[in-house]
Amino acid sequence: MTDAIAIVGGDAAGMSAASFIARSGEDAKVTVFERSGVNSYAACGLPYHVSRDIHDPSTLLVREPSYFTSKGIDLRLCHEVVDLDTTAHAVTVLDRVSSTSYTHHYDKLLLATGASAIVPPVAGGHAANVFSIRHYDDSIALVQYIEQHKPGRGTVIGASYLGLEMAEALRAHGLEITLAEGADHVLPAMDSDMTGLVHSELVDQGTDIRLGEPVVELEQGEDGSVCAVRTASARWECDLVVLGLGARPNIELASKGGVDIDVTGAIGTTDTMMTNVDGVWAAGDCVSSSHRVTGATVWIPLGPAANKQGRVAGSSMIGGSARFGGVVGTSLVKVFDLHVGRTGLTETEARRLGMRVASTRITADDIAHYYPGSTKTTVKIVADATTSRLLGAQIVGRAGVPGRTNVVATALQAGMSVGDLADVDLGYAPPFAPVWDPLLVAANRLGPMTRKAQP
Amino acid sequence: MTDAIAIVGGDAAGMSAASFIARSGEDAKVTVFERSGVNSYAACGLPYHVSRDIHDPSTLLVREPSYFTSKGIDLRLCHEVVDLDTTAHAVTVLDRVSSTSYTHHYDKLLLATGASAIVPPVAGGHAANVFSIRHYDDSIALVQYIEQHKPGRGTVIGASYLGLEMAEALRAHGLEITLAEGADHVLPAMDSDMTGLVHSELVDQGTDIRLGEPVVELEQGEDGSVCAVRTASARWECDLVVLGLGARPNIELASKGGVDIDVTGAIGTTDTMMTNVDGVWAAGDCVSSSHRVTGATVWIPLGPAANKQGRVAGSSMIGGSARFGGVVGTSLVKVFDLHVGRTGLTETEARRLGMRVASTRITADDIAHYYPGSTKTTVKIVADATTSRLLGAQIVGRAGVPGRTNVVATALQAGMSVGDLADVDLGYAPPFAPVWDPLLVAANRLGPMTRKAQP
Repeated sequence: MTDAIAIVGGDAAGMSAASFIARSGEDAKVTVFERSGVNSYAACGLPYHVSRDIHDPSTLLVREPSYFTSKGIDLRLCHEVVDLDTTAHAVTVLDRVSSTSYTHHYDKLLLATGASAIVPPVAGGHAANVFSIRHYDDSIALVQYIEQHKPGRGTVIGASYLGLEMAEALRAHGLEITLAEGADHVLPAMDSDMTGLVHSELVDQGTDIRLGEPVVELEQGEDGSVCAVRTASARWECDLVVLGLGARPNIELASKGGVDIDVTGAIGTTDTMMTNVDGVWAAGDCVSSSHRVTGATVWIPLGPAANKQGRVAGSSMIGGSARFGGVVGTSLVKVFDLHVGRTGLTETEARRLGMRVASTRITADDIAHYYPGSTKTTVKIVADATTSRLLGAQIVGRAGVPGRTNVVATALQAGMSVGDLADVDLGYAPPFAPVWDPLLVAANRLGPMTRKAQP
Repeated sequence: MTDAIAIVGGDAAGMSAASFIARSGEDAKVTVFERSGVNSYAACGLPYHVSRDIHDPSTLLVREPSYFTSKGIDLRLCHEVVDLDTTAHAVTVLDRVSSTSYTHHYDKLLLATGASAIVPPVAGGHAANVFSIRHYDDSIALVQYIEQHKPGRGTVIGASYLGLEMAEALRAHGLEITLAEGADHVLPAMDSDMTGLVHSELVDQGTDIRLGEPVVELEQGEDGSVCAVRTASARWECDLVVLGLGARPNIELASKGGVDIDVTGAIGTTDTMMTNVDGVWAAGDCVSSSHRVTGATVWIPLGPAANKQGRVAGSSMIGGSARFGGVVGTSLVKVFDLHVGRTGLTETEARRLGMRVASTRITADDIAHYYPGSTKTTVKIVADATTSRLLGAQIVGRAGVPGRTNVVATALQAGMSVGDLADVDLGYAPPFAPVWDPLLVAANRLGPMTRKAQP
């Protein structure tokens, strides 16, 4: 008998699942409900549309709808699932074009409802010149606003990865930028001893940075637009605001269906992406993951995990045995000319978890010192001081940052010690690396500080 | 009692050992004998001196001699060790400046005698316009020759990494280049299905490639210089020859001292770099290593291993417990605008070892397809078809090649399966990688072809 598979959400996780099932050749009827008018867009590319590195935003659309329909997937754009009855195996769908609702029955359901940008709960948070950058339309709206209103001063709230990318994107339009961050350093997801270079780069590129005080009000002018930003002790004027405060998982529909929300505030699943409710799977930015270093349940909503989880959910829904292996929290960001990576735990995170931590921070040549373009890269690695197990790394530099971050991500997945990392046979050629790769320099330095160390 | 430690060879392995011992604070008198006039130069940088990417060759000298003498190391340049009596714990040293010899007694000895470039055993192999590129003086001699004689046509014999780097370096001087390789494809250390792009790049950059026939004669003119190259079926004229035929370990001194030479033709050691002879260690390009993928003893003389082995030897000679973990055969090379990496076993090598091999070759976006500068990268991964264990990878592209090669090197060291690689939490940001990293695309493709695969 043909399984009726319903998928709520037509972005990374949802479409990965749908594609996997369609490719499998299994006898299943797949229906995808997507409330917006687009499917499968590259959300992480939106800042580069704002910056005009990408001129045509449609290049961010990964696949045309026709690609999926040609694979036999019933992709329904502008169809929002507004209710879920897991007993009756039914969803209520609102057709946003005709404004009519209907009931759709499923045998198996995938919740891939994603996450939504956090809007600060202050006056003015929803004004017309306050922009989130999460959905396909968001960057188009921002670019249109800039072109129409020619703002001179912008404020970015939140010095997250996205906040920094947006500061750079707005600088490309010539705006004066103020970057407001409630924590005491930019990139609060990194250790403060690694973000000084990033802070300097932002300042060098003309960004005014205000740290340590959350925004308490977005002051609105007569037309309702935000015209100034207030913290407890400061006030500055601005012509537009971009939010970089992160996101929250979209769990309303799951809650309506009795699907468990775990301690992270996201949907809890098994490693085959099954929820506690029979016949209901979940994947992507709306679910939590297992952290491979700590074993803890975490919510780190990033694109690679969403795609992998979608694939695993698709496999599991048709009886396959694929499993999602969890995350180590790898992320990369370009901040003007600086490249930044982190993976695993920061020192701050490890200490907060009560671990005995050893760490080292070194600055070394990124490629052979004599090769044209050589410059310095800074590497911090963090290990368990008792067992010598590697816990994480943070890297800031101008070349080789993604590769070195990924090497540590691989080492973390394998449970390597600092000594194991020091032993890895990393490649050497003058245009690409020094003979002692900075990772090895750091590992050799850190090794003796941990108990299992060799002299 | 103060140990008298003698080190033969003042390059990567020898000076790493000397430095490690000096830094340790142990009570040891370290004497280093180096037959040339320089210590610790970056041999892999020599092609970039020839190409004039590096103008001052002295930047290739990693450390001044005074650095080592200030650490208490007795560094004797132009002192060649010509005999070894391991029973008497004595070396015979020739002072090449005064042409006098003396005997030096040691308690512990490190052989770090390196390797020498292979010169083809054909007529003309030692002519004045035939150049090896291995020692510090070699690139200086070649550049001087080019500047004095203004040659128009050069031949590079051997399409190895070095051969390709030298073809590029000579092209930078405007020479017409013929590249002669006895095997049927360039970069014979890689699978032939991965070298087509490299071949095309060489041709596009003006290199004439002759494959499949070894050189049988270097024809000499009246002044003794080589003026033409002959293979069995061809002859072409040239004004200079550069050799890229690889190297042989320098084992003569070891043999004189009764030190075991193993099946690879290099000195065999334990993982603490001890030889079979009491009180004698060896490290660097003159020793064999354990291959972490196969467990076999191999001779893969590369800089990172030499440096690590020197460090381990230094530790071991003063009673430390450091061990050298072996190699996986990682190497990187830039060929004009193309970047090439390999690690682990090629398919050819794995089949030659009798393994059941599964492999896949994919071409994918190197960074997000919509980000400026995006292009394609080609990844081949090789696995054991029975166990799904990862065996190796080869990567050719224009960005991200070193990092991705190093990720696989790390995965190989950890003994990961193809499924493990597909699970690694690699970083994603549009300027650096697509959301599905090419390594994950390849691993997802290869997984189902191996027995432990998941659907």
